[in-house]
Amino acid sequence: MKLTHEAMGAYAIAPTPFHDDGRIDEASIDKLCEFYGRIGCNGITVLGILGEAPKLDAAEAEQVAKRFVKSAEGLPVVVGVSAPGFAAMRALARSAMDAGAAGVMIAPSPRLRTDEQIVTYFRQAVEAIGEDIPWVLQDYPLTLTVVMTPSVIRRVVMDNPSCVMLKHEDWPGLEKITALRDFQKDGSLRPLSILTGNNGLFLDFEMERGADGAMTGYAFPEMLLDVVRLSKEGSRDAAHDLFDAHLPLIRYEQQRGIGLAVRKYILRRRGLIASDAQRKPAPRLSAPAKEEIEYLLSRVARTDRRAALAVER
Amino acid sequence: MKLTHEAMGAYAIAPTPFHDDGRIDEASIDKLCEFYGRIGCNGITVLGILGEAPKLDAAEAEQVAKRFVKSAEGLPVVVGVSAPGFAAMRALARSAMDAGAAGVMIAPSPRLRTDEQIVTYFRQAVEAIGEDIPWVLQDYPLTLTVVMTPSVIRRVVMDNPSCVMLKHEDWPGLEKITALRDFQKDGSLRPLSILTGNNGLFLDFEMERGADGAMTGYAFPEMLLDVVRLSKEGSRDAAHDLFDAHLPLIRYEQQRGIGLAVRKYILRRRGLIASDAQRKPAPRLSAPAKEEIEYLLSRVARTDRRAALAVER
Amino acid sequence: MKLTHEAMGAYAIAPTPFHDDGRIDEASIDKLCEFYGRIGCNGITVLGILGEAPKLDAAEAEQVAKRFVKSAEGLPVVVGVSAPGFAAMRALARSAMDAGAAGVMIAPSPRLRTDEQIVTYFRQAVEAIGEDIPWVLQDYPLTLTVVMTPSVIRRVVMDNPSCVMLKHEDWPGLEKITALRDFQKDGSLRPLSILTGNNGLFLDFEMERGADGAMTGYAFPEMLLDVVRLSKEGSRDAAHDLFDAHLPLIRYEQQRGIGLAVRKYILRRRGLIASDAQRKPAPRLSAPAKEEIEYLLSRVARTDRRAALAVER
Amino acid sequence: MKLTHEAMGAYAIAPTPFHDDGRIDEASIDKLCEFYGRIGCNGITVLGILGEAPKLDAAEAEQVAKRFVKSAEGLPVVVGVSAPGFAAMRALARSAMDAGAAGVMIAPSPRLRTDEQIVTYFRQAVEAIGEDIPWVLQDYPLTLTVVMTPSVIRRVVMDNPSCVMLKHEDWPGLEKITALRDFQKDGSLRPLSILTGNNGLFLDFEMERGADGAMTGYAFPEMLLDVVRLSKEGSRDAAHDLFDAHLPLIRYEQQRGIGLAVRKYILRRRGLIASDAQRKPAPRLSAPAKEEIEYLLSRVARTDRRAALAVER
Repeated sequence: MKLTHEAMGAYAIAPTPFHDDGRIDEASIDKLCEFYGRIGCNGITVLGILGEAPKLDAAEAEQVAKRFVKSAEGLPVVVGVSAPGFAAMRALARSAMDAGAAGVMIAPSPRLRTDEQIVTYFRQAVEAIGEDIPWVLQDYPLTLTVVMTPSVIRRVVMDNPSCVMLKHEDWPGLEKITALRDFQKDGSLRPLSILTGNNGLFLDFEMERGADGAMTGYAFPEMLLDVVRLSKEGSRDAAHDLFDAHLPLIRYEQQRGIGLAVRKYILRRRGLIASDAQRKPAPRLSAPAKEEIEYLLSRVARTDRRAALAVER
Repeated sequence: MKLTHEAMGAYAIAPTPFHDDGRIDEASIDKLCEFYGRIGCNGITVLGILGEAPKLDAAEAEQVAKRFVKSAEGLPVVVGVSAPGFAAMRALARSAMDAGAAGVMIAPSPRLRTDEQIVTYFRQAVEAIGEDIPWVLQDYPLTLTVVMTPSVIRRVVMDNPSCVMLKHEDWPGLEKITALRDFQKDGSLRPLSILTGNNGLFLDFEMERGADGAMTGYAFPEMLLDVVRLSKEGSRDAAHDLFDAHLPLIRYEQQRGIGLAVRKYILRRRGLIASDAQRKPAPRLSAPAKEEIEYLLSRVARTDRRAALAVER
Repeated sequence: MKLTHEAMGAYAIAPTPFHDDGRIDEASIDKLCEFYGRIGCNGITVLGILGEAPKLDAAEAEQVAKRFVKSAEGLPVVVGVSAPGFAAMRALARSAMDAGAAGVMIAPSPRLRTDEQIVTYFRQAVEAIGEDIPWVLQDYPLTLTVVMTPSVIRRVVMDNPSCVMLKHEDWPGLEKITALRDFQKDGSLRPLSILTGNNGLFLDFEMERGADGAMTGYAFPEMLLDVVRLSKEGSRDAAHDLFDAHLPLIRYEQQRGIGLAVRKYILRRRGLIASDAQRKPAPRLSAPAKEEIEYLLSRVARTDRRAALAVER
Repeated sequence: MKLTHEAMGAYAIAPTPFHDDGRIDEASIDKLCEFYGRIGCNGITVLGILGEAPKLDAAEAEQVAKRFVKSAEGLPVVVGVSAPGFAAMRALARSAMDAGAAGVMIAPSPRLRTDEQIVTYFRQAVEAIGEDIPWVLQDYPLTLTVVMTPSVIRRVVMDNPSCVMLKHEDWPGLEKITALRDFQKDGSLRPLSILTGNNGLFLDFEMERGADGAMTGYAFPEMLLDVVRLSKEGSRDAAHDLFDAHLPLIRYEQQRGIGLAVRKYILRRRGLIASDAQRKPAPRLSAPAKEEIEYLLSRVARTDRRAALAVER
């Protein structure tokens, strides 16, 4: 089952779970997959660039991708394959697809500057991995410093039939969704799935602008699913009500550097991973930070009982 | 009345109001000052680097600073004097102080990298403007790309007795406030006012970590004042309740590039500036963006009636 | 006499001379102008971004520009007007032209990333200064981090009839000259003067690729003039022989940060400026560095007697 | 035979040779090793960050490192192991050392900004690879955007006994060598080999400032060896005479982006690699560029007959 431009809903970006000593925790991978399946996620994305993928060596990256695909039991798995060079990108892409992944995700190299360089880069990336692999174009200027205009995204998509999805996380980016959907209305852009990232910080309005769903790692993917569904049903107020209840925590989890520590802390508290260990280099949550997270959880829980976690002794 | 390390509360960062044709709108400056005074702001900051200060020529910057000082009627005015070189910094700092400003604000040059370069830069800046001018150290790595550790901030503060305040807008930055307050507990850092920026996105917790207040430009400074007050009173839940009601809009206004357009739109809608014109280069709000803002205002207004604005015809 | 696309030869980029105490040294401006005129420079460029222009306040920048124009006695003077905002750019451009400058020079704002942003920026800059002022497009990616492809340069030039010259200092940049000249051959680019910068580090080959001359600040502009002339005459070996004799010193003077200190040191040693003082922040030449410069001068002097300077006591 | 702080002379940075179709060319590795040994190089460095190491996948990087070690027949081989994460760094470092490498080279991650971040990064890197592996600290701000002061380098060296060498390629960097040697004179820095890079552009003066030699990839390592030797003998003029004869070509080969294409072209012309193919993304030399290189070679050959290459048909 390969990824297509019809993908929609919520794709959970899964963290890479480690044991306290830094070894990969495969049992927690299984637990995460079971959870994502149970709550109705439409797919799972692994080895994202903002997570700990760059901290794995090549063999470990392959191991993680394969375990997720195996545990996901049919749920489509997208594997991040961004790499400093095309040979490493190809090696991981081919082995992940052989193992049953639905597609791969590619971010632009941070060196790219001009429109022409960007277009050429993705053309060469597709040549490297092969034109038979469906892939997701990741657009994240805040972290990558590469700015892609709607026109450049259109060129990349039209140049490469195997590009089926945009992971949209420009910031600000609402107008970009509108511009791309307008391109489709005027016939200059073919169908394309747009899932939004950035920890869901603008998911409420992104859906209204025409996104097909979310692809991000927020610790309560149930909220992503509900907001996507409510928004598609046209229940605007209900979608915002639920979103706004989570927003104080979304914002806290979206902090750069420390965000993943927050996310792993909550996932551990939810019983979805055994340890919130991160490989170095990684910040550690201070005692005040942990208290703040617990306070935020208790506040979210007033509206959404799924955030009501048993108190840790 | 000069700025001291005892400054606290909410300092509103004022936009530079223009007429539709781009000329400075002095009447709107007066209106803003009247408003900030009426709601109880503790001070006003003008010519901030994220606003339109760089779009003014030298004579205009002086004109704006003077008009704000005159209209503020005793409310302390802090004037941003960051500049590519020390001569321009000095010229504006001296003329603003001569006109009655309470102090100036200086951001690091984006060129700075090492700890030593940062410390030297501020030493030379103080030599340039004169040691008699109280000043605010602006710490905004996201935009300026200059990262100052708590230790470096301590060195700058201890090297320069005229530095009386930190405008804190590191992101994430909660641990930095804690680290600086810990330095004061162990006696290695002298008293220092810490006001936080970043559109107030973390004001709720920043207050709890030890900030003295806010210095930012959010279109409802009343909220900043209330959250600062409630937090200082120890009314944690009430502070968060009010803050959370505004957070969806805070987030929307904090978007890079487009944020100031949102802010000016709301200030105009509130009747506080006559036009929301920005000088070029500036993004323009699309029709969907305006609708989103109106929707957010209506939602904030359910909790905070001050956001209930009359519908525009 | 205004700058046109027929400009050629060597434009000396003049430093801003200061007295030891940091005041502007107008007598040295006069001396420099007399020298540039005497050796046959085709023009003078002042207030370049890599020099000390950003260290002047607005009034000083105007003063320096006017003095150069007055002293140049008819030699065309190009005034750098790059600024953080268009109002300051306009103010300096208008006053310089009123004083008799031949044209102005504009570099892209370091914030620009996409092709579209670059094209829009220069369109707005021209609107700001007025379409009647001939201007030089400065292309210096190494320092400015803005990368302009030949196609983007063509768009800027074709969009703005008042753009008459490219100051070329991309690195590497030989292919860019060839691409632009090819555009002219195929009729898609109108006539444009191309003068090259980067301290002349590739002047030998830049001339062969089609440059019209040099615009840079190397301490021996006589060499620039001779290499341009020899190259135009087709005396390839002679051009390279002279160039290569200077290259060890060119390279030494082209060092970032410290380069201007080297240049001012040599200009003072040549008697062309009274002091080699720089305004802060500025590196100082160490004793070993001065010895190295003297050694390099003595080696250049074996081929080019103009580098034989009297020994300082 | 492991790398120690007594390393000196010229370490050639070897390119990764490919067949025309992009496969690794092991026969050319052997040929390069034979050449480096024959001319008297003191060591060989492979998989440098400015070369094509990032274009290899993990298995290929290991293959290349092992082949060089095997072919080098006792000449010490330093293996670049810089990687986005410590797991990949460790994997390559361990396998290279197991295969007989003399040491590894580590560059700072481009994300690092503050002194503290830099010091911590190298501490964690050493923990990751193991304290038993001698390593080279690479300092290359121009490309990596990480600026290390002499004091920070001292901290890294003093914190990590296994750090035995600095690959110095700051630019400008002469004062940095002097500062580090002064630290050793005052007893605050232990013995440390300093080899300089940056294509040798300042090798003449770097030796005089106290460098122990060169580690760079210039296509005529014989020149590096001779300049190092002449400089150590005190034959200043002779060292500069030889260096200056090569400088026009050094400069041409040091161009960013295109430099490696120039180097491979010359190495192929010298018969040291079978093909000058580069993996994508890579610039291609134009016909004018090739003519320029040939012209430069002919000019170098007037002084140094080793640059007199047979004309290609």
